[in-house]
Amino acid sequence: MNIPSKLIEDAVTEISRLPGIGKKTALRLALHLLKQNEVHTEALTLALSKMRQEIQYCKTCHNISDSDQCTICASMRRDKTVICVVEDIRDVLAIENTNQFQGTYHVLGGVISPIQGIGPEELTIESLLERVKKSSEDEPVQEVILALSGTMEGDTTSFYLAKRLKENNVKVSTIARGIPVGGELEYTDEVTLGRSIMTRINYSTE
Amino acid sequence: MNIPSKLIEDAVTEISRLPGIGKKTALRLALHLLKQNEVHTEALTLALSKMRQEIQYCKTCHNISDSDQCTICASMRRDKTVICVVEDIRDVLAIENTNQFQGTYHVLGGVISPIQGIGPEELTIESLLERVKKSSEDEPVQEVILALSGTMEGDTTSFYLAKRLKENNVKVSTIARGIPVGGELEYTDEVTLGRSIMTRINYSTE
Repeated sequence: MNIPSKLIEDAVTEISRLPGIGKKTALRLALHLLKQNEVHTEALTLALSKMRQEIQYCKTCHNISDSDQCTICASMRRDKTVICVVEDIRDVLAIENTNQFQGTYHVLGGVISPIQGIGPEELTIESLLERVKKSSEDEPVQEVILALSGTMEGDTTSFYLAKRLKENNVKVSTIARGIPVGGELEYTDEVTLGRSIMTRINYSTE
Repeated sequence: MNIPSKLIEDAVTEISRLPGIGKKTALRLALHLLKQNEVHTEALTLALSKMRQEIQYCKTCHNISDSDQCTICASMRRDKTVICVVEDIRDVLAIENTNQFQGTYHVLGGVISPIQGIGPEELTIESLLERVKKSSEDEPVQEVILALSGTMEGDTTSFYLAKRLKENNVKVSTIARGIPVGGELEYTDEVTLGRSIMTRINYSTE
């Protein structure tokens, strides 16, 4: 594509660096901004740079926040004795959307992946252990829920965390792997189906 | 979606104003920018504001340009006696990509659409007539090719332009409507097929 303007070409190059946006879409977006009033572009660029410059991370759970403590950690209504460990911020939003969880979170910032060169040190694991250990003085953490992806990396990280958390007197659980609600047995892969049988839930004691 | 940060929420709102981008995609893009180094966001916002502020339109053909004359109008190798009239900048890029056209362009900025309140005055039609009239002194325009969409609005605009251009001694043509290359007769709509028969090309005289 031969764009007759260096200004637009630069903009297209930058826009198409974003995930899932190719050159054609980038050009469409750039031309859209040109058609619109200048204030729209100004509002967009201002919101982006402001977000990037001023964003902070909660010092307790590493969730995104506008101050050094996120709204979840600051809330008096959240159960501080339960910590749900997730990979990144999007997982926090996903779990929050279920309205099922009243505890707090801990954002790891990724999962252990030797192939991508991510070891335990790159994640906020020490901060989690510290948090669990320190908590025992006032409001002790009683349960750590591992809510990581069902991938090999996720499982490795869960296993590592469970091992490290053993030292502290804390219950470690992981979210259930099984057939999605509304899913049919027939179309579920063997591994999931196998796991869902092994980790079956006892109706009578529930 | 309940985003726990006003900064991110503002960014998401602004990003999702772009065409074809919803809240979910906007959030994904915002979180991507947060994960990346700050220089990426800076480069993006700078490119966008620079484009919006410094972009100019060619005073001859109204194409986008970095100066007041676009590269096509400035080129000595383009045939100034042929003007191809298009709706917007993307059409210029599309025709340029075919490498078939060596003339110049005239970007209307839209088509006549009474429903959307766009009349001939909102478009660069006067500028086109002026251009054709003025050209007669040095390098006279000999042909105006109307390359507008095959919609009702496009056809109305073509008809209007053809009428207005009659005063000047200039050939007016329109791009062929017909079956796409590789297209099958069977699956072509009746209107297109009917037109392609009526406007058939004579092999023997070609």
